[in-house]
Formats: sequence, structure tokens, C-alpha cells
Amino acid sequence: MDFNHSPRCQELIDQVRAFIRERIEPVEAELLPAMLAGSAGGDWTKWQVDPKIEELKAEAKALGLWNFFLHDDERGAGLSTLEYAPLAEEMGRSHLAPQIFNCSAPDTGNMEVLWKYGSEEQKQQWLEPLLEGKIRSVFFMTEPDVASSDATNMEATIVEDGDDLVINGKKWWSSGVGDPRCEIGIFMGVSNPEAARHSQHSMVLVPMTTPGVVIKRMLPVFNTFDAPEGHGEVWFENVRVPKKNMILGAGRGFEIAQGRLGPGRIHHCMRALGAAEKGLELMIKRGNSRVAFGKPLIKLGGNQERLADLRIAIDQARLLTLYAAWKIDNVGALSALTEISAIKVVAPNVLQNVVDAAIQIYGGAGVSNDTPLVAMFAMARALRLADGPDEVHRGLIARVELAKYK
Amino acid sequence: MDFNHSPRCQELIDQVRAFIRERIEPVEAELLPAMLAGSAGGDWTKWQVDPKIEELKAEAKALGLWNFFLHDDERGAGLSTLEYAPLAEEMGRSHLAPQIFNCSAPDTGNMEVLWKYGSEEQKQQWLEPLLEGKIRSVFFMTEPDVASSDATNMEATIVEDGDDLVINGKKWWSSGVGDPRCEIGIFMGVSNPEAARHSQHSMVLVPMTTPGVVIKRMLPVFNTFDAPEGHGEVWFENVRVPKKNMILGAGRGFEIAQGRLGPGRIHHCMRALGAAEKGLELMIKRGNSRVAFGKPLIKLGGNQERLADLRIAIDQARLLTLYAAWKIDNVGALSALTEISAIKVVAPNVLQNVVDAAIQIYGGAGVSNDTPLVAMFAMARALRLADGPDEVHRGLIARVELAKYK
Amino acid sequence: MDFNHSPRCQELIDQVRAFIRERIEPVEAELLPAMLAGSAGGDWTKWQVDPKIEELKAEAKALGLWNFFLHDDERGAGLSTLEYAPLAEEMGRSHLAPQIFNCSAPDTGNMEVLWKYGSEEQKQQWLEPLLEGKIRSVFFMTEPDVASSDATNMEATIVEDGDDLVINGKKWWSSGVGDPRCEIGIFMGVSNPEAARHSQHSMVLVPMTTPGVVIKRMLPVFNTFDAPEGHGEVWFENVRVPKKNMILGAGRGFEIAQGRLGPGRIHHCMRALGAAEKGLELMIKRGNSRVAFGKPLIKLGGNQERLADLRIAIDQARLLTLYAAWKIDNVGALSALTEISAIKVVAPNVLQNVVDAAIQIYGGAGVSNDTPLVAMFAMARALRLADGPDEVHRGLIARVELAKYK
Amino acid sequence: MDFNHSPRCQELIDQVRAFIRERIEPVEAELLPAMLAGSAGGDWTKWQVDPKIEELKAEAKALGLWNFFLHDDERGAGLSTLEYAPLAEEMGRSHLAPQIFNCSAPDTGNMEVLWKYGSEEQKQQWLEPLLEGKIRSVFFMTEPDVASSDATNMEATIVEDGDDLVINGKKWWSSGVGDPRCEIGIFMGVSNPEAARHSQHSMVLVPMTTPGVVIKRMLPVFNTFDAPEGHGEVWFENVRVPKKNMILGAGRGFEIAQGRLGPGRIHHCMRALGAAEKGLELMIKRGNSRVAFGKPLIKLGGNQERLADLRIAIDQARLLTLYAAWKIDNVGALSALTEISAIKVVAPNVLQNVVDAAIQIYGGAGVSNDTPLVAMFAMARALRLADGPDEVHRGLIARVELAKYK
Repeated sequence: MDFNHSPRCQELIDQVRAFIRERIEPVEAELLPAMLAGSAGGDWTKWQVDPKIEELKAEAKALGLWNFFLHDDERGAGLSTLEYAPLAEEMGRSHLAPQIFNCSAPDTGNMEVLWKYGSEEQKQQWLEPLLEGKIRSVFFMTEPDVASSDATNMEATIVEDGDDLVINGKKWWSSGVGDPRCEIGIFMGVSNPEAARHSQHSMVLVPMTTPGVVIKRMLPVFNTFDAPEGHGEVWFENVRVPKKNMILGAGRGFEIAQGRLGPGRIHHCMRALGAAEKGLELMIKRGNSRVAFGKPLIKLGGNQERLADLRIAIDQARLLTLYAAWKIDNVGALSALTEISAIKVVAPNVLQNVVDAAIQIYGGAGVSNDTPLVAMFAMARALRLADGPDEVHRGLIARVELAKYK
Repeated sequence: MDFNHSPRCQELIDQVRAFIRERIEPVEAELLPAMLAGSAGGDWTKWQVDPKIEELKAEAKALGLWNFFLHDDERGAGLSTLEYAPLAEEMGRSHLAPQIFNCSAPDTGNMEVLWKYGSEEQKQQWLEPLLEGKIRSVFFMTEPDVASSDATNMEATIVEDGDDLVINGKKWWSSGVGDPRCEIGIFMGVSNPEAARHSQHSMVLVPMTTPGVVIKRMLPVFNTFDAPEGHGEVWFENVRVPKKNMILGAGRGFEIAQGRLGPGRIHHCMRALGAAEKGLELMIKRGNSRVAFGKPLIKLGGNQERLADLRIAIDQARLLTLYAAWKIDNVGALSALTEISAIKVVAPNVLQNVVDAAIQIYGGAGVSNDTPLVAMFAMARALRLADGPDEVHRGLIARVELAKYK
Repeated sequence: MDFNHSPRCQELIDQVRAFIRERIEPVEAELLPAMLAGSAGGDWTKWQVDPKIEELKAEAKALGLWNFFLHDDERGAGLSTLEYAPLAEEMGRSHLAPQIFNCSAPDTGNMEVLWKYGSEEQKQQWLEPLLEGKIRSVFFMTEPDVASSDATNMEATIVEDGDDLVINGKKWWSSGVGDPRCEIGIFMGVSNPEAARHSQHSMVLVPMTTPGVVIKRMLPVFNTFDAPEGHGEVWFENVRVPKKNMILGAGRGFEIAQGRLGPGRIHHCMRALGAAEKGLELMIKRGNSRVAFGKPLIKLGGNQERLADLRIAIDQARLLTLYAAWKIDNVGALSALTEISAIKVVAPNVLQNVVDAAIQIYGGAGVSNDTPLVAMFAMARALRLADGPDEVHRGLIARVELAKYK
Repeated sequence: MDFNHSPRCQELIDQVRAFIRERIEPVEAELLPAMLAGSAGGDWTKWQVDPKIEELKAEAKALGLWNFFLHDDERGAGLSTLEYAPLAEEMGRSHLAPQIFNCSAPDTGNMEVLWKYGSEEQKQQWLEPLLEGKIRSVFFMTEPDVASSDATNMEATIVEDGDDLVINGKKWWSSGVGDPRCEIGIFMGVSNPEAARHSQHSMVLVPMTTPGVVIKRMLPVFNTFDAPEGHGEVWFENVRVPKKNMILGAGRGFEIAQGRLGPGRIHHCMRALGAAEKGLELMIKRGNSRVAFGKPLIKLGGNQERLADLRIAIDQARLLTLYAAWKIDNVGALSALTEISAIKVVAPNVLQNVVDAAIQIYGGAGVSNDTPLVAMFAMARALRLADGPDEVHRGLIARVELAKYK
């Protein structure tokens, strides 16, 4: 057992940390207030990407700080899940960083799907420009009219018709769909309703310009729209794509979804923990700088105990996430079900608790947008629902546990 | 000991409940989506009050459903704090209701101050139009540059100069200041810096049109601006008002603040509990109507236990708030310090927990504005800071407890 | 709504409080160490009741401080459930007090059953000596071989045979059965297995001297046996009693059990809250008297916040219990299901939390028997299981809540 | 980063696990009921060690399953702290196991002290027989009359007098002092009252037979005495030992205490986690085997969610403890302050929570001694106080955290 990062991993951590501090943070300080304000409403069809973001991307790419997430020596950085994890944590401290290093959801998951399961043609057409950071993508899974915590509830359909697949249904929480750079979506729907429960669904590539793809509205998360990416409600009305847009094969949607989720949860959780570290730092700095009743706030009442509990919680969550990553790399995601579900419960809740405590120290400033805390809170709260709500993951862990005594 | 409401109180509860359901809720259903969307950004100087709101106010006033909060038989409804409490709970279920019955913060507290401590001239000029619902008001207390949890940190100044008082300082979280109907503010600042610690501050009436009163910006709460009332950051630069605008007398600001806070906390807490009841109702209805893994969501995992815990928490918080109200009425706010601080901790936390659980049942819809849950969450989270953060109230309770054994 | 106790109730509270402080506490200080030590093991058949206890009983009885629990003007004190509740709280501060005032479980419940449902002959034979404090009693309900949280699991049988009832089965947690004064038990078992689910059981009076009643062992609770009362495992092997020992009628066991449980839970919960107040007092006194790092322990870290939270928790639990009592008196236990289950969850947990915090302040002394904290902890922990575990009560509350929206 | 145990470590884990299951558990099943019952009271001077225990020790020793804790290739097993940790977890599942492998507190800590700081003569006289398992030992630190959470409160004295050291003071919670095999104690007291705050104390070896060493009584923990080891209150009245019994040198007591505590906390925490795993196993097995309302208990209400949360908590605590062990080995205990304090808070609380949940599933049996749960609970609860209460450790973590921003 060894808790040291590999030398290469440690070097990348240092480079990423330095790039964020020196190159990204100044831009973020400049852009974020306008992004948060603009993100709070208005006409999403006018959303723009600031050119400074593309400049930073080019700079990071030139330095080789790019596509860390992909386990491919040529197309990506060739890191293991475990090696990528601390980089994701570093990126989680910043709003912009994941995108700058071409490591932001949902693109990462979509690229992994194409890399693992895409045909050569699909890779050429969509994976390459995504890996180059030229386009962005969206994943159409969650539906507004059913409880999506049970994926078998899905109602959208994919029907063969001649050389085409005809797609119908309503999706929402399609993140990134508002981005002017978003060109391609992966759509999941029922293609084989008569098959076994987990073989009824397929995934299909749908270019955003396909007729019948209608973005009905953008959805706010705690009143913010996360412009310019956004979270859309998208309706599909007799949308036609060629059969070759099917990924892997009809009925293999759940198989693909499983492959997509393991590493993706590591990414989400490590980013959440990076944000939690940032939140703790903010809490301490503010608590040290403001005085009440003759003492810095952080020294009053139970604040130091709360601080200690949050430190303990973050450290435990990080170790569990790293362990889950190690299991994915060494025994596979299927043998790491408990750990993957566990971190999915733990990390977002840790972040939510840290942010709640930091807000409490900040007072009114904490609920405004003068700090990134509200944005972090929205991230945490949404993450407790995304990719399966806490309760579903607890249920899965319990099932594994009970099975040990069968 | 008797837990029945008085017959008059019960009758008013029934009337208020019916008026909310029959008259206010339909208007709210129509106006709220636009209010929430509009409230998320844009130019606050263009905020408008929908005429339907003034129509509802006139209707409620005509029915005598008006000014319940004021313990004055002629000017108000003549109810005790305890009798008003359940009416505040009913109003808390609705976003618009408090205003419709002329029972919304910060007007209620400001009217109480004027009623208790105002001169005859001050009452004529400002209390009467407030009681009639013709104008609205604001309270200038919290400051951006100091920890306001310790009110003695206050830096704003009130200096005598001939027949005038000259006011300088920065205030924020001045709720209601964005409302086009807002005409008058009560400003608290340091007037007697050499006096004893709690005799240094005064409260002064400042008409919003006074030169030097500058609204710098509106502050979002979890990205929403609560239009058209809003929460402002307001700077006072050599603002001059006549000496007769002083309330009660120089150095008596804390005395007034204390008188203002006791009943105000009852109002806040009962409204929070009304919102909590609404949140629980939403949680149950959604949990009954959506199905996953073959069962309504509410029957899955620990959801029923959570539901029970929330029911217990609400019922306990309500009884404690009613008891605090009874103590205020019967032995005075000073003898009810523990209870007033206790409910100020409990009720907002109960609301936050209910809303968090309801969001979890709603899934994605819960973090959007398709439900009032996000608005309720912002209310709860801000209330844990307003009027003293949780920690200050816990500290006060501990002091009282320790004093019992001295 | 009025939170004042009735004058008579207040007078009794004062008398009981004074009697406990002046008469019982000195005896308790003398007897308790030996009781706790002796209770930890040894031969239960040699358990004795100290004559000082009978002397105190006689004294209390002579002063009319007796049988407060019984709503009967002649046989008892004629107090309502609500009026009795604060007396139970006072008694809960002391280990011996409930017995001294003839208000200790399980006698109170058994006396209520006989008073409400017993025949004249049953009352003469058993109720009268119990009311006089001459004998004690036991309730045979819980069984070792089934999950007793579901009362319909019960396996013990009651079979008619000529003029007799023949009883078989195993019971445990039969509290009080080790007391040398214990003469009578109420036994619940299946008498009508073919009847509807809640009409299969009966309750029967079984004198302790009846052949076939075998006390197999006494059960420790956190290693203590609560001598001289004790909690027994008792086996019934072809135990014969005359048919007239049936209470109310065959198949009416659940009906009786329901009648027994409502007020009994009020008693348990108020005693638990009295113990919680005592625990809080101990915590504060110790926290004030010991110094570490230059300050009294109670002023260190989060201790004052914890203290405040416990004060809030106790006050809320008390109000909810009083409200439940008021509902039992005014609308009946069936309409107070939510409240009765709610306090059954809340009060023991509050006590457990208070005791845990007090132990933490006491350090090593807290886990020894140098304080009553360990005994209070055992009381709290057992009470979370007795009369239905927390989870069953939460389930019941949820059912009531869901039924509101059917 | 690598989460695999070393091959040697894994082999030892397997051997220890097998030995516990095959050799220790049958003996434990036979001895434990009598130990628990006997431990509940009676005359401690008659406590005996069952010969089966010495037989098992001899057997383990012969197999080389012995002294795992000592980082010495010759005297001990030569394992690192990290390698020993999983062995401690295995031992924690059993009441007897730590002693059988000569790895039980307080002997392990005392042996470490002698190994690191003892003179050659001290090693010959006391370390060797301890390593051989021939004698046992005790550590005299905590005092009854002061808050021992602040070690500088210590009042016991060590005074030079000619060739002797004269010792006076009261100690309690001296674990193991009741064991008939206990021959030697390490005593900490004030020797240099004029020195700097952390240089005033020394540690001295005191044979149990030295005149003036008086065992006043054994202290129960939740009513049990942990016979035959016991926890004593011991008074020292002019106890004389030769100067050569001083360890390391006058004034170096805190230095020794620090060296003793780091690895000791790893041991305690891993044993606690082993016990937690055992508790979880018991909870699941009972929850599967008992039925209520038509389902196994474990499937009712929120039980599966609780189970999942406990699994998550145990796994996180284990990883954090292993990480702390790794830091001790690689960067030293001083650089692992946060982690050592963190696990000291986390692990006992996890065990307490697991046991509480398991008791709730067991019902009445859970609070009796029909299961080891009560014993585990006492272990957890005492461990939250021993070696510094939770609050002190949280305070230390906060201090380290705040220092990062100085």
C-alpha cells in the first residue's frame, strides 16, 4: 500500500495547479461576474463564448495539458483513472478550468463512449473534433415525464425505418445544449421494447442541426442557467438519422451507459472535492478576517469544530474516491460498485456541507454572487440528483452488502 | 394549559386560508413564473408591481383581512402575538400572501417601530400610509464591511449639524428598497460614539428621495433578486434629514431594535413553518405520483422515515414558536430570550431540511423553477443569517442556561 | 391557547418537586450506589427492597402524593393526562421517585388496564392492593423468538380447557418480575387464531405463584439488572388459571393494548425529559467546575452550541409531549396517533443525546457509576426499543401523513 | 498510489483471520458469557485468567503470530505501522484476540515505550517478559481530580530523594491493573514543576508490589468491569523506586507520551473498525433472519439506507486510518497530526453508530449480553474519551488548518 502519486502524476498536478493559478484564475476573476449575472436570465439564444476561453484552451493544449481523462496514449494523456483523479480535483477548484483542459462534462463521457464503442467513421466525424476542442456535445438521457432515477422508466423511442432511425421523445437536463459550439448529441431511447429489461435501449448520435430537434427552453439550477452551456429541455419530433449513427448496436444502451458512468463519477466527485477544498479555504480566510465579539469569526462558538469535521470529511471522501478509482483500474467498475456508489453519495454531500458552513461564515455575502459559494452549492445540490440520486446509490450499496450473506 | 386557538383566531385562520386558496393562489399561479424569471436578472430600475396585486390588497382590506400583525385595536387587528402566529403560518404557504394582507416584512417591523416609538408627526406622515398599504418601507441596518452578527460593529454615522442630522455609511441587504412603492427607510447608525456600548446608536427616518441616498446595486439571493422588492446595497453620502426624523431619541437605537425583533422573529418563523408545510405537501404529492422500481417514490428506501422526521420537526418547531409567542405576550420578550433564539435557530433549519428532502423527491424539477422549492430554499437559507445567524442565537441560549447555575 | 399549568397542577408540581428534593434525594444518595453495584450481577433470587423505600412510600401516600396517574377522583388523583405529565417529568429526575408516588411502570399501565377493563372481582383482588402500593405487577408481552416490533408475531397461546385457560409460551423483558413484591402478571397471547388479525389475542391475569410460571433468568440492560425489579425471561408451561382471569373478553387483547399505550407513552416520555433535564444540569455543573486549557470545559470548543441545541431539543420535546397529552384528553388517543408516535421517537432520543453529551463532559467519570448518567443512558437506549422501536413509530407517522392525500 | 497490501502483510492477514476463526472463536464462545457475567461485579481481587487463554497464547506464539505491533525485526514482527494496521482490524473482531497475539493495550504501548526509550537494564527486566507474554502492565496517566483532556493539569508528583524517586498522587482508568499477571506500571507525574510547560513531567517504572501502591477500586464502564484486566483507581502514597526506574530522563514525559500515542491510535482505531465490521455483520444477519410486517427487518423502512451509510462510514474510516499509518511510517507522527486526530474522532464514532444501529435491529436482545454489542458499545463510548476526547482532537485539527493560512 502506497499513498504517493506517481512522479508523472505529481508533475502534472503541479503543472495544472500552476496553470490554473497563473493563467486561468485571472481570466476567471474578470469573466465570472458577468457570466454569473448573464447566466441568471435573458435570452439564451444569444449566449456567447468569450474569446479568452478559446485562447486559454489553445495555450493549455500547446503545453500538453489536454485530454487528461482519456486512457489512450495517443489520443489522450494515457493516464489511469487513479492518475487522472487528482487532476480533476485541481480543476474542480475553478469554474473554467475543466473546459480549458478539454476535460469538462458531458464531453468527457461522450468522448469516452465514442472512444470505447464508436465505429471508425463515428470517431472520425465526432470524436476527433471533440478531442481537439473544436466542438462540444450533449447527452440526452433524463426525461421530464418519468422518474429518471429508474432508467428503465425511459419513454423516448428509436424506431428503424428503412435506412433511418426515427427518434421521438422528450429529454431535459441536457447539459451543454445551449452552447453555440454544441454540434452533436448522444440520444438514449427504447429501441427493442420486447427484449429483456436491460436490452431494450440504444444510443444514437444525433447532430444538433437535424430537423425535429427542438430546444424548448433552458432550465435554471437555483435560478442560474450556467450560460453559455445551459441545461436544456429538448423535444424530438420524428427526428431522422441514418442507421450508422447507432452506437455499438441496437439494445446495447445500458451496456454503454454502465461503461460511461464509472470513471465519470470519479471525475464528478474529485471535482466536487476540489470545490470543497476551495470552499473550506474561503471559509477560513473570511473567518480569519472578520471580527465579532472581539474575536475572528472562525474562533467563535463551534466554528473550529465544524472546520475540523469538514476537513475530516473531505479527506475521507478523497481517499474513498481514489480507492474507487484504483478499483476501477485494477478490478473493473463492476467489482467497484459499492465504492462508486459510495463516493457518489459522499462527495456531493461533503461539498454541500462545506458550502453551507462557508456561507454561514460569510453571512449575507455568502448567498449573493460576491463569492463562488452559491455556484458551488448549486453544483453540489444538482450532483446529489444527477447520475442517480443518493437514495438509489444507498440502495445499491445495501444490495451488495446483503448479497454477501446470501 | 390549552392548545385550542381562540374562537376569533380560529375564524381568522379559516378566512385567511380560504382567501389564499380562492383569491391569491390563482393570481400567484399566473404571476409567479414571470416574477421568478424576471427576478433572475435584468435592470432593476424597471421593476414593476403587477396591478393584480394592488387589487387583491384592496379586496383583503375591504374584508378586514388586514394589518393582523399590529396589537392595536384601532390601527390594526388587535391580535396578540400568539393569535397572529397561526395567521403568519397560513401566509407563509404563499409567496404573495403576506403582502396582500399588509403583513409583509420589513413593513411590519417598521410599522411596529413607528407605532411604539414614533412621534405623532412621524406616525401621521409614515405610519398611516404604511398601514393603508399605500407605500412601502425599508430598514437600513446590515453593513457590507463588518461582521453584522455583532451589531456593535456598525460603522455608519449620524451626526448633528444645526437643525439637521447628517448621515454617512454603507448598508446592504436593505430588503424592499427596489420596490417602486418604497418611500421611507429607517436608518440605524452611530450617533453617540462616546456613550455606553448599547447607547451609541440611533434610528432615523430617511425618505428615499433624500439627496445622497444612492442604491448601488441589487443583491441576488441564490441568483434571484426577489423582484420587485429586492435587496439593495445602499450608500449614504452626507445625507441630510431634519432632527425631528430621529426616532425616540439619540442613543436609543438598540432599545428600539430589541422591541422590533421579538415579534418579528415569531412572524418569520411561522411563515417559515407555513412554507415547510407547503414543501412537505409538495414532497408527498410528487412522491405519490411518480413511480420507480415498481413503487411510488415516497414508498422507496428511507423516504417514509424522512417524511416522518420532517413531520415531527415541523410540529415541534410550531409548538415552540407558539410558546415563544405566548411568553412574549405574557411575560415579555426579555423573559423569552431562550425561546425566541431557539425558534430562530429551529424554524429556518426545519424549512431548509424539508425543502432539501422535497427537492430530492422531485429530482431535476426540484432545482429548477418549475416548483416553488428553490424560492423556499433561498428563504430558509437567508433566514439562517438574517436577524442574527444560528450561532449567535445558540450562544445566547447557552449564556442564559449557564446563568441559571451562577 | 394557554401554556400555564392549572393552579392545582402547579401546586402538585411544587409539592412533588419539594418532596423529591427533601425526602427522596437524600435516601437515593444513600441507596443508589449499592443498588447500582448490586444490580450489576449476583443472584437475583436474593434481591431485597430496602425498608427505607416503603417508609418513603407511606410518607408520600399520607401527604396525598399518590397515584397521580389514575384519572379517577376516588381511586386516583383525578388528574388529566396533561395535568399528570409535568409530575411525571419531575419524577423522571430521580431513580426512586416514580415508585415512591406509586407511579412506576409497569404498575401504572397494569392498574389502568384493570381500572378500565377489569371486572369488579379483578379490581378487588388486584387493582386495590396495587393502588395501595402493597404489591407490584408485571406485563408479559414481548417474546424472545420473534420480532416483537410486529405484535402480530406473538406465539404464546391461551387455550380454553373446561373452566380454565391453559397458557403456554415464552416471554422476556418482563420488567418488575424480579421484585419480591411482584404478585400478579397480565399475560397476552393468541386465543382466537382464526379470528381477524387484531382479534386473535387476549389478556389474562396470571398470579406469579401459579404452577408452570418459570423465571428462567434476569436480563441485563447495558450490564445492569435494575435490581430489585429486574427484567425477566419467563417461560409458561401449561399454566392454568380460571376463566374469570380473562380481561374484558377473548380476542380483545389488542383493544386493551391500545388503551394502555397512549397515556403510558406520555408517562415514559415525560420521565425521559425529566431525566434529560437532570442530565443537562449535571453537564453544566461539571462543565463549569473543571478547567482545561485555561477555561471551564463548558466554554471550550463547541460545548456551548451543543448545550444550546440540547436545551432546544428538550423544550421542543416537552411541548410536543404536552400537546400529545392534551390531544389524548380532548380528542382521544386514536386522533393523536401522530403525536404519540412522534414523542415516542423524540423523547428517548433527546435523552440519549443529552446523556451522551454529558458523558463527554464528564470524561471517564461519565462512563463509570460515579454519576447516574450510565443508568440514564440505559433507560434512553432501552426506551428506543420498548413500546415499539423508533422505526415502527416513524412508519406509523408516515402512514397517517400519506393518508391525508388519499 | 497502490491499495494492495504487501504479500507478507496479506499472508499474515489470512493467517490471523484463520487463527481467530478456527482457534479463538470457539474458546471465546465458551468463555465470553461467563466473562461478561462475572465482569459485571463481585470481588475483583478474585479475578482469574482462564488457562485456555494462556494455551492459545502459546499456540499463537509457536506459529509466529506474535508481537506484530513492534517495528523490530528481532524482538517483534518487524512490520510497519501500515502493515500492522489490517492485523489490528482482524483482532478487533474478537474480544480475546489482541491478547492472544500479545498485541493488546496497554501492553503494546508500554512495550513500545520501553523499546524506544528504555535503558538496557529496563529492557531486560520488563520489556523481555512483556514480549514473551509472561507478565502484563499498566499505564498510570489519567487522574480523578482534574480534567485529563489537558495533560498539563496532571497533579501527581515525582520527587528525587537520595537515590530514590518518591511518587505521590491519584490515578484512575489504569487499565489492566486488576489482572493477576500485571507486574509493572509506567507512572507519569510532575518532576520538574519549574521547567517549561511540556518539560515538567517524567515517566517512571513502578513495580506493582512497591509499598504505597494502593488499588482503591475497580471502575465499571457501562456497568462492566472488563475482568480480569479491569480499570483501576490507584493511589500512590510515598511510593519509593530507585532512580534508575526513570525512563529516558527527568522532564521528558511528554516527549515519551507523544512517541507512544501515534501508533497506539492506529491500533485502537483499526480494532474499532474490526469491531464495527463485526457489528455490521451481526446487524445484517439478524435483520435477515427476523420478520415483521411480512418482510425481513433489514428490508423495512430506512434500514437499508442506514446499512449503506454505515458501510460507507466504515470504508472511509479504514482508508483514513491506513493513510494515517502510512504517514506515520513515511513522514513521521508529527507530520500526521491531522490524520491521527481525525481517525481518533472518526473510528470510535463509526463503531458507536454501527453498534447503535445493530442494537436497534436486535431489539431487546441487543441491550442484553446475548450479543457482544453492549461490550462493543462500551468500547466505542470509552474510546471517544480515552487518549483525548473528540473535542480536543477536533481542536487540534482546526489549529493545523488555521496555521496553513497564517
